Amino acid sequence: MKAPIFISQSNAFVQAARKAEQAKAEAAKKAEDDANDVSKGQYGDLPIVGSKDYKPFPQKRYTLHSTSKIPDNTEVLIRCDVANARSQSAKLAFLNLRDGLDSIQAVIAASETLSRQLVKFASTTPPESLIDVIGVVKETKEVIKSATIQDRELHISQIWVISKSVPQLPIQVEDAEIAIPIEGAGEDQKGESGRPLVALSTRLDNRMLDLRSTLNQAIFDIHSGVNDSFYEFLKARQFRSVRTPKILGSPSEGGAEFFEVTYFGKKAVLAQSPQLYKQMLIASRFKRVMEAGPVFRAENSNTSRHLTEYTSLDLEMEFVDHYEEVMFLIRDLLHHILTELSTTYSRQTERVRQAYNAAPFKLPKDSKDIPILTFSEGITLLNKAGMEVADDGESDINSTQEKKLGDLVAEKYNSDFYILKEYPLKARAFYTFPKGGELDAKYSHSYDFMMRGQEVLSGAQRIHNHDMLKARLDALGVPIGAGLKDYVDCFRYGCPPHAGGAFGIERIVLNWLDLKNVRLATLFPRDPSRVTP
Amino acid sequence: MKAPIFISQSNAFVQAARKAEQAKAEAAKKAEDDANDVSKGQYGDLPIVGSKDYKPFPQKRYTLHSTSKIPDNTEVLIRCDVANARSQSAKLAFLNLRDGLDSIQAVIAASETLSRQLVKFASTTPPESLIDVIGVVKETKEVIKSATIQDRELHISQIWVISKSVPQLPIQVEDAEIAIPIEGAGEDQKGESGRPLVALSTRLDNRMLDLRSTLNQAIFDIHSGVNDSFYEFLKARQFRSVRTPKILGSPSEGGAEFFEVTYFGKKAVLAQSPQLYKQMLIASRFKRVMEAGPVFRAENSNTSRHLTEYTSLDLEMEFVDHYEEVMFLIRDLLHHILTELSTTYSRQTERVRQAYNAAPFKLPKDSKDIPILTFSEGITLLNKAGMEVADDGESDINSTQEKKLGDLVAEKYNSDFYILKEYPLKARAFYTFPKGGELDAKYSHSYDFMMRGQEVLSGAQRIHNHDMLKARLDALGVPIGAGLKDYVDCFRYGCPPHAGGAFGIERIVLNWLDLKNVRLATLFPRDPSRVTP
Repeated sequence: MKAPIFISQSNAFVQAARKAEQAKAEAAKKAEDDANDVSKGQYGDLPIVGSKDYKPFPQKRYTLHSTSKIPDNTEVLIRCDVANARSQSAKLAFLNLRDGLDSIQAVIAASETLSRQLVKFASTTPPESLIDVIGVVKETKEVIKSATIQDRELHISQIWVISKSVPQLPIQVEDAEIAIPIEGAGEDQKGESGRPLVALSTRLDNRMLDLRSTLNQAIFDIHSGVNDSFYEFLKARQFRSVRTPKILGSPSEGGAEFFEVTYFGKKAVLAQSPQLYKQMLIASRFKRVMEAGPVFRAENSNTSRHLTEYTSLDLEMEFVDHYEEVMFLIRDLLHHILTELSTTYSRQTERVRQAYNAAPFKLPKDSKDIPILTFSEGITLLNKAGMEVADDGESDINSTQEKKLGDLVAEKYNSDFYILKEYPLKARAFYTFPKGGELDAKYSHSYDFMMRGQEVLSGAQRIHNHDMLKARLDALGVPIGAGLKDYVDCFRYGCPPHAGGAFGIERIVLNWLDLKNVRLATLFPRDPSRVTP
Repeated sequence: MKAPIFISQSNAFVQAARKAEQAKAEAAKKAEDDANDVSKGQYGDLPIVGSKDYKPFPQKRYTLHSTSKIPDNTEVLIRCDVANARSQSAKLAFLNLRDGLDSIQAVIAASETLSRQLVKFASTTPPESLIDVIGVVKETKEVIKSATIQDRELHISQIWVISKSVPQLPIQVEDAEIAIPIEGAGEDQKGESGRPLVALSTRLDNRMLDLRSTLNQAIFDIHSGVNDSFYEFLKARQFRSVRTPKILGSPSEGGAEFFEVTYFGKKAVLAQSPQLYKQMLIASRFKRVMEAGPVFRAENSNTSRHLTEYTSLDLEMEFVDHYEEVMFLIRDLLHHILTELSTTYSRQTERVRQAYNAAPFKLPKDSKDIPILTFSEGITLLNKAGMEVADDGESDINSTQEKKLGDLVAEKYNSDFYILKEYPLKARAFYTFPKGGELDAKYSHSYDFMMRGQEVLSGAQRIHNHDMLKARLDALGVPIGAGLKDYVDCFRYGCPPHAGGAFGIERIVLNWLDLKNVRLATLFPRDPSRVTP
């Protein structure tokens, strides 16, 4: 056993000696190179920003986006990402530089004042590294198709790495620029470039790189835009931002779809929605409330439409005489949100729809032209189109029928957004106000908002009268347990008539862009089999 | 055993006969009264709004608030609450009517055109009922101290109950108008009116009535105002609204203070903060992110400062050269929020401070005048004031020292808001950037924001370099388990230098108003012993 060890050790000595020799030769070469390097001090790895050795550049900074508008031949300092780098020869390299939705082609050409060493450094900078570059923006004659800024190039004179990426990436950001593979078609589909399409699960596992794609930057600009337009519209209409608790002592809304939390040795549950709390706030005279926050559903469904955690845009408000006062306000709200998306976020919308080959969204200019149909009228449309559905006051329409109805309405009224109201009472939650206030009513004061035939908001007038609520709960056989008692009690002390609704923010994004999977509209989606990253 | 039953039954027959007689007499009296009632059809209980029988009033509606500004002798229709009702005689009653922060005195006086029956109905309407009233607004000579509108009265001609309260309330809203009892002084303290003060726990148990007080309406106007100013300031500075997951596969930030969730038979945990996710988004090139949402802390502390669920106002952003770029932006943000509270919400602020006998909040006009001290300078101030605290790079200051330092700074700089920066590295989380980037640094690139000597925001530059982060984790002996792996990995692929922070919204409200307990700044507070309502 001893002999091989000695041999191996003596081998190691020989190898070490050789390496030392090699290193010496390389150092000598480098010293010579350095001496010949006219670009010394014009490139390299900067010390970590925040460390003692880091020194700011004195120049004015530009954004990559601004280079599309500045005069020809302007010298700029820009911080951006290396999307990719390729060397054409020892004297010429091209980089694709990226910042948000924008990209520009950069040229590094060796010359009397720019060394081959700089060209080499630039062309070997790993993609996804963050850099500071100094260069001159020049107009080009040819159209540069590989960048979003197609009539300019950046001629680099200095390149400094701020934060370097490792060379091997688990997924390529370029691959994340392509629409996800079609479900069921297997994972060996190829994109236009001929490279295999990266499956959704792989993208989500590497979400931090996936999100860098302009496709995802656009989706989450829009996500943020929905949130912001929701908020701004309601704020201007005196809605108050509220925060309702997510940890509840007991489940409140019935069903088994809640998550259990261990709460100091006891059991608590996660809120499935702010529903009962926002109503309690109306009873507390909060008049108009809004909340954008997480809701939790323990549904064991692995479909393209379900998440176990998502963002609910909730609102609830008093009305004076008729619940449609609220329905109209929500109609104007969604119309406002979508108008914002089609104007302020047109570039982002275009980027995603192009990738997903999505049709434009038909939206009437005036919110008063949004079609409003009763549930019965919807059924009649479906029946006329040959789809047999009963209007028996017992059953809701299913998602296939909903989709079909969406198509029929879009065709008839030229709108991908419509409202279906007066759902069967039996198809709605216990707190829904029966049509005309009659306990045995067939229909209810309720409404769903549809985009491309999918529900994006569900809402209704709520029962504000204690005796009526009690009678409904009795009729449905719902016991007033610990989770409902405070809620039911609060209607004893006088409560304004009120109505409201809740949007799924992801549903709006999904249907606006016609994405294929709700996970694509969620930063870090949660489903029964995914709780990371 | 039989005999008493027969007797009792025959008694019942006798009683029933008597009752029938009584009822007949009352009906006759009522018929006579009705015939004599000149106000018939001018008062009563309206059918439930939304029911078939409900009919809207044709008149224009006014808000109670608007009555303070309209011409003398205007007839108005108003929806509001009955705060209280008292009859002076069979011919004269007074109501106190309330809507939001406003109240007005109403007079109902019998006359040739207004019956005693109407007076009786008005004076017996249970407090907290919601009503529609028609009346004439008249200027008064005396100051009406019991209402916020002190120079007008409403002379009622019609009164209709929209939603009636039961006569017995678990707590009186009037009692909720008074500051909570001082801790430790027992529950038998008396308010100015001589009535016992209602304890905090009783108020929270009956939060839906408690929240109707103008005191709470004001607090939650301010709560909403903090949220809204946070959002608007950052939105105008290109921050993106994001939603990070609240259900995590494994705890990420260390410590044992997380809640466990049963997730489809497996264990998951609730997020203690969006910290790691907002950093991952920065690594994903989101540039500037903000999130207002719930965070969960399983701390078994029943103090006046701790909640197990609260609202965190989080932000994180790239910077170019120095982390103080971010610190200054956050300084301007908090200055903006507080300026908003002192202007737009001055009435609400006044209402609460008066109840809690709170001193005004000293706020420099210009955010550049907000004092910024290093931790060391803070310690020096404390030492000079005779409080012995070590600046040994090991220990943080405790809350007593913080409070004292707040007083010293307020005195020296005339500001109740100041920033303490460069905390000892050992007193901060593992991801905090060491001063000058040196792993063994005594201090760090960190900051806390203080209001009245209490921390309302904690923040720092975060380590954006993978090797530095790895070295810090190794030095601290923190294993890179499942909860940290994705986070640590994301710094391999290039990451912009960044910093951020998180406000507790309740802390801002608490210290702005100098409330005594963080629960008062939370709609439905959660602590180890409270998960309801």
